Amino acid sequence: MREVSPRDGLQVEAIHLSTADKVAFIDLLSSAGFPQINAVSFVSPKAMPHMADAAEIMSAIHRRAGVVYDATTPNRLGVQRALESGVPVVSIFVSASLSDVRPGATQDDALVAATDAITQARESGLGVIAVVAKAFGCSIEGEIPPTRVRDMARRLAAAGATEICLGDTSGEAGPRQVGRMVGDMLDLFPQTPLSLHFHDTRGLGLSNVLAAMDAGASRFDAAVGGIGGSPQTRNSTGNISTEDLLHMCEDLGVDTGVNLDVVLEAYRFLEEKLAHPLPGRLGKFGRSRKAHLQ
Amino acid sequence: MREVSPRDGLQVEAIHLSTADKVAFIDLLSSAGFPQINAVSFVSPKAMPHMADAAEIMSAIHRRAGVVYDATTPNRLGVQRALESGVPVVSIFVSASLSDVRPGATQDDALVAATDAITQARESGLGVIAVVAKAFGCSIEGEIPPTRVRDMARRLAAAGATEICLGDTSGEAGPRQVGRMVGDMLDLFPQTPLSLHFHDTRGLGLSNVLAAMDAGASRFDAAVGGIGGSPQTRNSTGNISTEDLLHMCEDLGVDTGVNLDVVLEAYRFLEEKLAHPLPGRLGKFGRSRKAHLQ
Repeated sequence: MREVSPRDGLQVEAIHLSTADKVAFIDLLSSAGFPQINAVSFVSPKAMPHMADAAEIMSAIHRRAGVVYDATTPNRLGVQRALESGVPVVSIFVSASLSDVRPGATQDDALVAATDAITQARESGLGVIAVVAKAFGCSIEGEIPPTRVRDMARRLAAAGATEICLGDTSGEAGPRQVGRMVGDMLDLFPQTPLSLHFHDTRGLGLSNVLAAMDAGASRFDAAVGGIGGSPQTRNSTGNISTEDLLHMCEDLGVDTGVNLDVVLEAYRFLEEKLAHPLPGRLGKFGRSRKAHLQ
Repeated sequence: MREVSPRDGLQVEAIHLSTADKVAFIDLLSSAGFPQINAVSFVSPKAMPHMADAAEIMSAIHRRAGVVYDATTPNRLGVQRALESGVPVVSIFVSASLSDVRPGATQDDALVAATDAITQARESGLGVIAVVAKAFGCSIEGEIPPTRVRDMARRLAAAGATEICLGDTSGEAGPRQVGRMVGDMLDLFPQTPLSLHFHDTRGLGLSNVLAAMDAGASRFDAAVGGIGGSPQTRNSTGNISTEDLLHMCEDLGVDTGVNLDVVLEAYRFLEEKLAHPLPGRLGKFGRSRKAHLQ
């Protein structure tokens, strides 16, 4: 489990949490036992005012042993700032959709920039999660050829990525598609851990997790309360909800090492601070009584 | 696919649709190609004022060839009324939870009443869907022993039920539990078609469908817009959404024979008449672009 709410969740919220609240929230998540937390991004404060205090957050949080804190970095400058903040892992995005290619540039330019940043990060001793965004479809381009995703993953892995993450940024994926893609990726890159990042736009988030698990995947992003969604992506909605996923894992007998009760505390913290109902279900309806008795 | 919105969905809504609207809605569902529609219930109008016009509805709808219309009937009187309305199939409920046993009675009394009604219906030439409600857990009793569910199913099948339906009335089920239960049921009752009725209370509705399909099940209840939820059940929420399920089936390559575009028309009809947002996702966010191109 990689908890992405502090970065991927809070960035789209109308209400900006104070630095102190963000620190308290990340500390609460650390105590829940997540092995990995996507804590901040080092981006231009103009592009993402939510994250202007990233360095301050990283110096204020209580870094718990056993928890890997990662920062999302868009480019070499971001990687440099992450390094200065003592972040051990960065996540670097590149979109699989041609609709995200900047005017006058090519998709190859974006890939070269990403692999450059990966090389720089690795040379500085950082781990790198290389995220292929929109890997399962794009609300603008439509279907993304799986060969394109695999070719991108190959170049990112060759550049030294320590984890490949496939992102279903606008919630286009379905379970059969996910199963096939995960099977292919595990065959092609047996040495590079694979993670999956699903959104619940069309209600298939947890079904996609189930299909990915069946195909052999074991690393998943999720956000407390199911908050999030790319501000740049039409029709996107929140990430899959951490607490709903943990509840499913209880049924499956999958031990995540994450304490669901603490996650529900984090849910209530967010609900109060953000002052609107969150998409996640378990926080509203509670664990099934059945689960308590098992 | 058995579409349950006209009965299981509308019964909990604050707004009562006019008889003409209900008829128009059922006719629209018939044109979508559902093989089975849970159209009405024959219950006391005092207990369920929504369904006071059940006989009128059944005489006014256009019965389309190839569509089986069923009526929910709580007892022998209901079966008699269904028969008078020319309904070919009735659905008869019995709850697996001891919390639903009436004061002074036993669960066996409820089972005897159900098997009596089944016998009567079968002798009159009707088909019977015998529904074991709360088969996967109860928000009051907690865990329901699977042996109890299997024993109940055995008696319902022996009484002549033509289909056994397991209902997750308050949304307690998880995919592993569902897979095991479905496997057991198909082994025990290979001659009696099995259907599953899931609620999406904790976000696991479609994951449970996926697990049930993997275990060999192929018949599922769903409601347009994901409306519904038992008025008697604490913390219950809507049925799984028909359009979200159909969208998943498109990804899975499962041909349901149901036209998703017409279902989305039915979604918009309901949204307008009920005057509130519906829980289903696809009606809000649309099919994935990917699916259009496949």
